[in-house]
Amino acid sequence: MMTKVAVVLSGSGFLDGAEIQESVITMLSLDRAGVSYQCMAPDIEQLHVVNHLTGEVSEGERRNVLVEAARIARTNVIDIALANPNEFDAVIFPGGYGAAKNLSDFAVKGADSTVQTDVLQFARAFAATGKPMGFVCISPTLIPHIYGADASLTIGSDADTATAINEMGGIHVNCPVEDFVVDEERRIVSTPAYMLDVRISEAATGIEKLVNKVIEMTNGK
Amino acid sequence: MMTKVAVVLSGSGFLDGAEIQESVITMLSLDRAGVSYQCMAPDIEQLHVVNHLTGEVSEGERRNVLVEAARIARTNVIDIALANPNEFDAVIFPGGYGAAKNLSDFAVKGADSTVQTDVLQFARAFAATGKPMGFVCISPTLIPHIYGADASLTIGSDADTATAINEMGGIHVNCPVEDFVVDEERRIVSTPAYMLDVRISEAATGIEKLVNKVIEMTNGK
Repeated sequence: MMTKVAVVLSGSGFLDGAEIQESVITMLSLDRAGVSYQCMAPDIEQLHVVNHLTGEVSEGERRNVLVEAARIARTNVIDIALANPNEFDAVIFPGGYGAAKNLSDFAVKGADSTVQTDVLQFARAFAATGKPMGFVCISPTLIPHIYGADASLTIGSDADTATAINEMGGIHVNCPVEDFVVDEERRIVSTPAYMLDVRISEAATGIEKLVNKVIEMTNGK
Repeated sequence: MMTKVAVVLSGSGFLDGAEIQESVITMLSLDRAGVSYQCMAPDIEQLHVVNHLTGEVSEGERRNVLVEAARIARTNVIDIALANPNEFDAVIFPGGYGAAKNLSDFAVKGADSTVQTDVLQFARAFAATGKPMGFVCISPTLIPHIYGADASLTIGSDADTATAINEMGGIHVNCPVEDFVVDEERRIVSTPAYMLDVRISEAATGIEKLVNKVIEMTNGK
C-alpha cells in the first residue's frame, strides 16, 4: 500500500487562510517522494477575509475555509469532519494565519485559545495511533491542544508566540528556517518556514526536510 | 546586476485566476536559480468567481485580479499598468484559466479573443526588446496577440485549443509535460503543465525546465 498523508489546509492566503507557498511546497515534496496525499479542511466560515494587497480586513466579505482550500488543492479537498484518521500514515499542517484564525483562535486568544472541533477530533484521534505529524510555521501552536503538556516544538524564534506556547504547556525550541525540531516521544516534527522573514527557497528547504523526516517516521524510524 | 524576472499573475485559483501550484513552482524555481522576481497583475475585476469545491460560478460574488494575486505573492505584487518593461530581463506567465478569462477573453471567444489592454501593452513593449518570455499551461494562447503570426508554441495536446491557436496565426506543436517548446527567433518558451492531466511533480519538472531555459536565454544564449 502506498503511504498516504493528510494535508490539513485552513483556507487560501497567508493573512486569513493557509500559506499558499508552504501548502504547495508540502504537496510537491510529498509527490516527489512518491507518497500520496489527501487535502482536507474544516467546512466552516473564515474568521474574516483580508485584502492581501492592503493587509486590511475586507469588511462584510465572507468566505468558507473548505471552499477556499479547494483553490490550492485543485478541487481535491475533503471535509475534515468526514475524514477517517485510520486511513492515513501521517498528517501535515502547513502554516498561514488560517491555522491560528480558522483551525484555532490562537491569533485572537493566544494561550487561552481552543481548536476548532472537527480539527481537534481528527488530530487527537490520529495522535492516539502514534503515527507521525508535521507542523509548519504557526501551526505548531495546535500541538499543546492535541498532545497535552511537554511536547517539544518550534515556531522559529518569535518571543511572544514562544511565550504563549510555553504558557499552554508546550516546550518551545528556537530553530532556523532550514532545520526542524523533533519530539521523538510523541513523533512530532515542526519547522518555522515563513514565521521567519525568509525567501521562498529557504522556506522550501525546511519544509522538504520536514516532509522527508515525517515520511521516514512512517517507516517506523 | 541581479537578473530580474516579471511573473504575471491572473488571480488566485485555477478555475477563475492563476493556477496556484504553477505560480508557486515558477517563483520557487526562479529563487532557487538565484534570480529575483516581481509579481504583477492587472488591476481589474475577475470575469467571475468560481467555487473551486463545486466548480460552479458563484453568482453575485466579485473579486479583483490584483488583490487575489497578492495571496500567492504574499502581498508583493504590483499593477502591471505601472510596471516598466525595461526593468526586467525576462517575463513568465504561469497558467490557470485566469490567463484566458482575465488576461484575455480566450476562454469565452477562442480565436476571436483579445488581450486585456494593460497586459497587452506591457507584453508587446517587452517583446519589442527581444528579451525572452516564458508561457505555462493555457497562457501560450496570449502569444499570437503579442508576437503576431507564425510563433511556435505549445499548450500540450488539446485539439480544440490547438486549432484555435492555429486560427489566430500561431503554430501549435504537441509537447509532453516534462518538456517545452522554444521559438528561437522570437525567444519564446512554452510548456503545457496542467493543460495535461498530470501530478504536481510532473508539472513542476516542465516548469523548472522552462524557467531554467528562460534564465539561460537572458544570458544571450
